[in-house]
Amino acid sequence: MKKNDYIENIFAWEEEFDFYYPVKVRFSETDMFGHLNNTIPFIYFEEARIEYFKSIGLMKDWVSPEKETIIVVADLQCDFAKQVFFDEKLNIYVKANSIGNSSVDIHYMAKRENGGICFTGRGTIVQISKETGKGFPWTDEMKQSFQKKINVSV
Amino acid sequence: MKKNDYIENIFAWEEEFDFYYPVKVRFSETDMFGHLNNTIPFIYFEEARIEYFKSIGLMKDWVSPEKETIIVVADLQCDFAKQVFFDEKLNIYVKANSIGNSSVDIHYMAKRENGGICFTGRGTIVQISKETGKGFPWTDEMKQSFQKKINVSV
Amino acid sequence: MKKNDYIENIFAWEEEFDFYYPVKVRFSETDMFGHLNNTIPFIYFEEARIEYFKSIGLMKDWVSPEKETIIVVADLQCDFAKQVFFDEKLNIYVKANSIGNSSVDIHYMAKRENGGICFTGRGTIVQISKETGKGFPWTDEMKQSFQKKINVSV
Amino acid sequence: MKKNDYIENIFAWEEEFDFYYPVKVRFSETDMFGHLNNTIPFIYFEEARIEYFKSIGLMKDWVSPEKETIIVVADLQCDFAKQVFFDEKLNIYVKANSIGNSSVDIHYMAKRENGGICFTGRGTIVQISKETGKGFPWTDEMKQSFQKKINVSV
Repeated sequence: MKKNDYIENIFAWEEEFDFYYPVKVRFSETDMFGHLNNTIPFIYFEEARIEYFKSIGLMKDWVSPEKETIIVVADLQCDFAKQVFFDEKLNIYVKANSIGNSSVDIHYMAKRENGGICFTGRGTIVQISKETGKGFPWTDEMKQSFQKKINVSV
Repeated sequence: MKKNDYIENIFAWEEEFDFYYPVKVRFSETDMFGHLNNTIPFIYFEEARIEYFKSIGLMKDWVSPEKETIIVVADLQCDFAKQVFFDEKLNIYVKANSIGNSSVDIHYMAKRENGGICFTGRGTIVQISKETGKGFPWTDEMKQSFQKKINVSV
Repeated sequence: MKKNDYIENIFAWEEEFDFYYPVKVRFSETDMFGHLNNTIPFIYFEEARIEYFKSIGLMKDWVSPEKETIIVVADLQCDFAKQVFFDEKLNIYVKANSIGNSSVDIHYMAKRENGGICFTGRGTIVQISKETGKGFPWTDEMKQSFQKKINVSV
Repeated sequence: MKKNDYIENIFAWEEEFDFYYPVKVRFSETDMFGHLNNTIPFIYFEEARIEYFKSIGLMKDWVSPEKETIIVVADLQCDFAKQVFFDEKLNIYVKANSIGNSSVDIHYMAKRENGGICFTGRGTIVQISKETGKGFPWTDEMKQSFQKKINVSV
């Protein structure tokens, strides 16, 4: 079995998050076991990630048909700490943990309003060319946008 | 960034799969980037995992209101190798990679009909008590059911 | 072909809505045609309907395992007036249009922030007994809760 | 309240279906009430409708970026006759009920393997120009494709 090895020190890791986006568990997102279905956190991750990208001035280009790049998910994972239930309000925290040439490692943390962590996650996002499907390097400006939110003490 | 470190040797790993379940990409599972949305493989994983459980005689108890246990996902991850598109047929391979006391590490591989791997994944499933929410040990019989499909050479 | 015959006079009909719940179109809710997939408005309807029920003091009983009733959808329809796109903010208006013995006819209207109607809908909700699966009459108190929001001029 | 007025004579109506597409209820498609969530039949309708279009030689053009048209849903409705549960196999029957200039009225019927009807539905599909967003007339060939499956006695 594997552990969430992307978290070295949970206290330090938690502190590095600035941005969050609130979600509320929809009825249609529960399953017959009476709780949030395990596939839904990835929907929350995508929603919060996009809001994070918007908050740092990105995203616009990727949804514009005229532009030459989109972003894709290269890998994605979620660690479930607690069962989540209908109508719960969660804040989905997002941060850029490290930046590659054309990729960025995004970390996620879902917290109840009372502060309890329900699930965490991470995943690599890659900017690719629509034409070639290959990685398309970030501009320096983009890197700086991510940097603003990155814990520089590491 | 992380790599899919649950695959030591891709050739050996691939060989260990017996069971698979076919899916076809629904139109509603695509997104505005024109491909399969990144949240959908987890739906396929769940569907194929349940069919795998059924194939080895499990699952029935967990969906029975009278029984005392359910299974939950403790963690889940997916590595995307290739973009997948509307109407593609994929076989979702499933195997039990290793067994704990009340948990099992399930591996996944999605293959096109022509044999190309589109995405892989893994995740821990835990049997819990409905009452306590805590891990509920497998019976020996259950362990044997998983074993049938497990690579014993490891 | 059919028309949305549940709207006699669009101006009068529009005026009768009090309650609304805001949603924002998720990326995962778009499809490869670049717009909101046609199955998603029903998710918005459910979410807004439940918030409406909560606003008039209902819903609590139906999600309580100890209670004897749940609500089910008997029929549901949506009329699409305009294409909707990623990241759009919509207000989903909800009203109880008429009340039966154990059922209620709920109407829906999705509006852009600028006031444009994107889609409308309606559907019958029935309170049923968990045990028999049959209609379970509203109490007078429940009827009054719905009434508050109902256009009494009809 | 409204009745499913698109069915005049249920026996005659049922007989007019030729095409069907099988689906199986996914675990993730259930909700905490223990049954199929009310939003899912519309996903089945879309999947079966597209398979129907493919069966009569259509669909290819609409998913081709070079072509000038797509199809959109103008309205959609579902009448729920019976609760549906996890793992049930349903056949989703599809027929073109009547053809307009650039639209077609599609009818749906979901049947259990034992023959019981679980839900029915209908909805208008319109072919539109990607550029103008306006209705784009069927060719005669397209009309004939639909006709093959249409109840000619009407």
